Parts: sequence; C-alpha cells; structure tokens
Amino acid sequence: MAAAWSMPVEFDPPKVAVVLDKSTWTRILLEASGYFVLNVPVVGQADITYTVGSTSGRDLDGEGRDKFEAYGLETFEGEVVEAPLLAGCAAWLECRLLPEPHNHEQHDLFLGEVVAAQADERVFKDGRWSFEGHDELRTLHHITGGHFLVVGGHLDGQVLSPKPK
Amino acid sequence: MAAAWSMPVEFDPPKVAVVLDKSTWTRILLEASGYFVLNVPVVGQADITYTVGSTSGRDLDGEGRDKFEAYGLETFEGEVVEAPLLAGCAAWLECRLLPEPHNHEQHDLFLGEVVAAQADERVFKDGRWSFEGHDELRTLHHITGGHFLVVGGHLDGQVLSPKPK
Repeated sequence: MAAAWSMPVEFDPPKVAVVLDKSTWTRILLEASGYFVLNVPVVGQADITYTVGSTSGRDLDGEGRDKFEAYGLETFEGEVVEAPLLAGCAAWLECRLLPEPHNHEQHDLFLGEVVAAQADERVFKDGRWSFEGHDELRTLHHITGGHFLVVGGHLDGQVLSPKPK
Repeated sequence: MAAAWSMPVEFDPPKVAVVLDKSTWTRILLEASGYFVLNVPVVGQADITYTVGSTSGRDLDGEGRDKFEAYGLETFEGEVVEAPLLAGCAAWLECRLLPEPHNHEQHDLFLGEVVAAQADERVFKDGRWSFEGHDELRTLHHITGGHFLVVGGHLDGQVLSPKPK
C-alpha cells in the first residue's frame, strides 16, 4: 500500500514510524511477517502510488494475485527483509517491526527499526539529497485524493545571533 | 524549537505525532503545560527555523529571556492553546498533549490531539495546498544541518486497472 504518513523517530538505532489503518491488508501481512519495507516513490510513479494506495490487495488475494503481479511492478530483493523492494524508487528502507501492541491498537501506529537502507545515488550522495538534473526522480508527497506535492528546490539556513539584551 | 520529525496520525479526531529529544527545553515546557503548537515554516523563515532548532531556550531562560524576545519573533494568540503562534507561517496546529509515558520515554514520541487549526488562505483553500504565485510561502522541510528542501510543483495520480489475469 501507499502510506502517506511516515516519519523518522530515531537516528541510532535508526527507527521509523508509519500509520496503517485497521482496514488494510498491508497491516495484516506486516503483523504476520514482523518486517516491512518503505519505498520512497518518485514523480513518474504517481499513478501507481495512488493506485496501490486506493485499492486493496485483499481483493486480489481472493484470485490468487497480488499487486505486484496485477500492476506489472518490477521488484528486486532486499538485503535483509524478504518483502520485495519496488524498482524505480528514490530510496528503500527495510524495517523490523517493533512489538508495540498499544500503539498498533490505539493509534494505528507502527514503529520499525531500519535494518538496511539503500538510495538512488543519482539523487542521494554523501548523506545529502539533490534532485537537480534528475527531475524524474523528485520524490512524491501525497496530500489527499491522489493529489501530490513534489519536492522542489533546496536552500541552507544560517544560525542567527540573539539580539543584545 | 524546530521539530523536523512530525506527521499526522489520525483524521477524526485529528491527531499528530512529533519527536522531541530528551535534551530539549521544549519538551520540558510541553510536558509542564500539556499543550503545544506546530507552526509550519516557509522559505523566508529558513534562518530563524534553523536558529531555533539549533539553539536552546534553556540558555536564554537563565537570563530571563526566551527565543521570541531574543530573535524578535512576531507572534499572535491561538484560538485554544496559550502558547504563542509564530506569525508568517503557512499553517498552525494547536494541540493537546495525549498522556503516553511509554512513547515519551521509549521513543521520544509525543502524540497530540489537534484542538484548533489555521492556515494562510493564500496557499491553503478548500482543503488543498497550492503554492503557485506565492513562492515566498512554500513550506520548508529540514533534511540535516540547516539544509532544507522546499515544496515544489504538484500533480494528480490516476487509478490504474489491474492487468487481465
């Protein structure tokens, strides 16, 4: 599924949080396996991102299919996690689910420790994102109803001095 | 402080999650008051965003000052919460802290129910963000070390049909 609500939670060990509604098939698969992958999609994947976020694999499962097959999605193997990684994304985080039943039940909130990470080196290098010259790899950020904002330019902030007292 | 790690958690009632390190003065103030505000900063606020994110109000408090006074920040009153709202942002979420000691201690994770929300109507209207014609109000997204990505264009995804079996 496409999960619009996710964020980092810790650097060391690296952890992420993601929200998964109780109605989702992904949540069932994730709780059963104890692992998940976050794929970071790019502009050219807007249609497929919206599609996998607004349809359920549960409907396909009854026919013995899954979304990868049904939508012809190319994947590759992760370094640690068995779940397939979606080709063409900007980055991939393989995660081990942390057992947090209160957060799952009360907040639909799932925490994972990142056990492997990869990124497309054309846009992520030396710990820094730079999308210039690679507009097709700019990342997608879902707002609502299939409407996405796309990452644009970048800038650096400077630390100001407080005014004299 | 500037909190780079935040996300929505629920639509109804609206809830958000934010990560606050144990070292932060903001965390002490927030736990004492039981309320907090999320201000969504814009490109023209990069310096002040980085500054309030890389300095501590604890240092100023010893001199009887706070960051608002020390950096000449203009504020206005919230609708519900007593904490001041920072003028010039794109949006403001006033939040009531949910008591979640496990998440605070274990994950530095704080959940809040959004009790009031405002946005600059030049860029948020009818439930939708649109920054065209208002480049100065494009939102800032901190990556690391004062380096920010800025929201760029937007696009709509279409729902695809699965391939025939």
